[in-house]
Amino acid sequence: HAHQPNDVIRKIVLTIDTMNPTVKNVEYAVRGPIVQRAMQIEKELREGVKKPFTEVIKANIGDAHAMGQQPITFFRQVLALCSYPELLNENMFPEDAKNRARRILQACGGGSVGAYSASQGIDCVRQDVARYIERRDGGVPCDPDNVYLTTGASDGIVTMLKLLVCGEGASRTGVMISIPQYPLYSAALAELGAVQINYYLNEEKCWSMDLSELESSLAEARKHCNPKALCIINPGNPTGQVQSRQCIEDVIRFAAKERLFLMADEVYQDNVYAEGCQFHSFKKVLFELGPEYSDNVELASFHSTSKCYMGECGFRGGYMEVINMDAEVQAQLSKLVSVRLCPPVPGQALMDLVVNSPQPGEPSHITFMKERTATLSLLAEKAKLTEQILNTVPGITCNPVQGAMYSFPNISLPEKSIKEAKALGQAPDMFYCMKLLEETGICLVPGSGFGQKDGTYHFRMTILPPTDKLKILLAKVKEFHQKFTQQYS
Amino acid sequence: HAHQPNDVIRKIVLTIDTMNPTVKNVEYAVRGPIVQRAMQIEKELREGVKKPFTEVIKANIGDAHAMGQQPITFFRQVLALCSYPELLNENMFPEDAKNRARRILQACGGGSVGAYSASQGIDCVRQDVARYIERRDGGVPCDPDNVYLTTGASDGIVTMLKLLVCGEGASRTGVMISIPQYPLYSAALAELGAVQINYYLNEEKCWSMDLSELESSLAEARKHCNPKALCIINPGNPTGQVQSRQCIEDVIRFAAKERLFLMADEVYQDNVYAEGCQFHSFKKVLFELGPEYSDNVELASFHSTSKCYMGECGFRGGYMEVINMDAEVQAQLSKLVSVRLCPPVPGQALMDLVVNSPQPGEPSHITFMKERTATLSLLAEKAKLTEQILNTVPGITCNPVQGAMYSFPNISLPEKSIKEAKALGQAPDMFYCMKLLEETGICLVPGSGFGQKDGTYHFRMTILPPTDKLKILLAKVKEFHQKFTQQYS
Repeated sequence: HAHQPNDVIRKIVLTIDTMNPTVKNVEYAVRGPIVQRAMQIEKELREGVKKPFTEVIKANIGDAHAMGQQPITFFRQVLALCSYPELLNENMFPEDAKNRARRILQACGGGSVGAYSASQGIDCVRQDVARYIERRDGGVPCDPDNVYLTTGASDGIVTMLKLLVCGEGASRTGVMISIPQYPLYSAALAELGAVQINYYLNEEKCWSMDLSELESSLAEARKHCNPKALCIINPGNPTGQVQSRQCIEDVIRFAAKERLFLMADEVYQDNVYAEGCQFHSFKKVLFELGPEYSDNVELASFHSTSKCYMGECGFRGGYMEVINMDAEVQAQLSKLVSVRLCPPVPGQALMDLVVNSPQPGEPSHITFMKERTATLSLLAEKAKLTEQILNTVPGITCNPVQGAMYSFPNISLPEKSIKEAKALGQAPDMFYCMKLLEETGICLVPGSGFGQKDGTYHFRMTILPPTDKLKILLAKVKEFHQKFTQQYS
Repeated sequence: HAHQPNDVIRKIVLTIDTMNPTVKNVEYAVRGPIVQRAMQIEKELREGVKKPFTEVIKANIGDAHAMGQQPITFFRQVLALCSYPELLNENMFPEDAKNRARRILQACGGGSVGAYSASQGIDCVRQDVARYIERRDGGVPCDPDNVYLTTGASDGIVTMLKLLVCGEGASRTGVMISIPQYPLYSAALAELGAVQINYYLNEEKCWSMDLSELESSLAEARKHCNPKALCIINPGNPTGQVQSRQCIEDVIRFAAKERLFLMADEVYQDNVYAEGCQFHSFKKVLFELGPEYSDNVELASFHSTSKCYMGECGFRGGYMEVINMDAEVQAQLSKLVSVRLCPPVPGQALMDLVVNSPQPGEPSHITFMKERTATLSLLAEKAKLTEQILNTVPGITCNPVQGAMYSFPNISLPEKSIKEAKALGQAPDMFYCMKLLEETGICLVPGSGFGQKDGTYHFRMTILPPTDKLKILLAKVKEFHQKFTQQYS
């Protein structure tokens, strides 16, 4: 009896064999085995286990505050006022913070952020988002009814994919995603049982999009599924490129010609560092191409409170704007989001502050601009630093970090290390990153977690650690890479 | 050209015909057409349109703060401190609020609620939840590793269903839900394409669960699907019953015998009003039944910050505890939740305060208890009032509101009104509620949105409006029902 497998004795309902197999196919490297091991090592360090390092440096996830970035004072003042409106009677807060808080509270049921909001999001927040988009896009109109507040950008992306994906066999919906990609996309597609259609970014041309690559990838996919959507991340995650206006135009023409629904993940829209680079929203370019495009191409674009200069990941704020969406489908979208009642209201409030930040003449404007500029300048500096130092390492080649928060360098791995990794059933760059973690305490994510051309290896590292720590990190990576190369040569 | 249907001209990708059909099957009455009409009417009133009433009273959703319930002072103080830690230097906050805030902030990356937490939730919050569950259940042990913080209870419920649902045709997963039910369940099952297995609650016996009903419903379902799980809402939504210990015991024995995974939605665990009624958690009863059950029966139980005495819906806080879950499945669960990064951190903080509220001797204890007791007493009073007044109306029969926040009375509808509704393609109780809304401004949800025995009609109304408004509401419902009955007789 005692020797029987446990599940037989326990007559369990839900086992690895009876559970939903699509969930088993889901992978999410950004919080995968390497991060779990990093957390274990942190625990071991706390318990006094001796290691060749004294702390784990996590450069695996775009989590700015965890890396010491300070929140924007104005945002947090308004959030405190919204949480505890008694503070509106105190004279310690600037008037513009109080005004924002009053405006948000007035729009909440019973004047409380503890009430559910409308499922699409608080009306006045959606109006502010619409005005922000209009300003950003040089006056291209935005209808607040097309704005949906979300629980981070991830929520919006998954919701859109849910609407799109259906069919079986050769008519199963296919969705084109860049490789390398942010693994939310592959995870969501796996869960929905959609066909993931890879198109490769051109590493030689600074991770730009290649029209011929899009065309051949689509043609190939059409043989076995029904491609319906094309996802773009700009500025790029994990690859850090900023797409040129020309490239965006090409992509839109391609989507129009091939009848693809565009999904533009634009959460890094303020994170542009390289000279000569500029953020162009897909929506703006779409409208500049004229009514043939702006009246026809369907587009959903996504933004979030988690990145840019604010880095407020924990609040799970975000929005999406849908353009040219069929009215009946949009009614279905509104119904679908109502099942989850509403996005977190504090995150909605924060999204409002991002799109309605202090204006010149308001008491908080100078401090706000100082904080915003300081954060973005520091990021630009760290982007440069990361590229420069990594490119001094023989065997590491790193494209400029034009935007976003990541570097995705190409690493040459010795044949012997590749063999050893494969013998262990590990991806070679996972083997590399795991060794790096064990020997230096640095936590990066292997390129295999994002996808890459066969036979190439990469890692993703954030540029978020404080400058002094980033320098240590880069020096350690350099030293490790040289040692590793030697050891396996 | 101008006369062609729009979609043909626009060559649109995503139409009602090409979209995911399972999304089309989703229904969610709590925010359905009647609520949309109510919002329209509110807008009309603001614009000066004359109506036979001056305001819309929304009793359609369990949204306490929107109905004027005040937040718990201590909770909001701590949330303000967490949002803007500068306030820790002010002497306007009690020490226990500051201590809670410091403890939460220390557990956050970089000391900021703007950092992502672990995907399962902040460690110390999960520990506090575990201790709360142990206290609640008279010492039955709880492992924090089995606690997952969630984005409201809905998120946990959908996540569990995602793990469970698979298979095709006759081996498609079936999930048993009570009728009447909370429509999150039917919506989630529709979206996942699972088989919804209805078991009817016994209205004659105060909406209790009938073992014979469970048995026959299961036997019938086994002919065409693979029943895997049994969902229970206790205290009941929309039906307001509190299940007896005996009933819970019967359900657990049934689940054990029939190998069903139990899902216990216990978000109203503090909302028990009727004399002689008491909340028994499924977990506690499971453990009292001894190891034959407590070592075998799989259970997930759900809680939330949205109901009880706090009513903090907007923060989207919640947790689930899984018991006897297979280790490999649990690893899959942990992976699945990591894709969405983490539940909103302010909601996690709030969940922490709920399970770790001020203790005797702490400076905030007396105020906290006063506020908590006042809210719960008021709810008990309104539960009684609602039942009493509704039962004075000829043609309305109302079970006692033993717990939760809703009354679900049976309404007799004249044949003529049923015919007229059917001619309009409406459910008869939808027709009734829509007329009630247009004539009185009262917004209720028809029973058909929750499910009910064929030929019976109901509505769900919350007991949340302030007492004076609730009295007006009940008087208006009474008057309307009499008029309606007369009009269609």
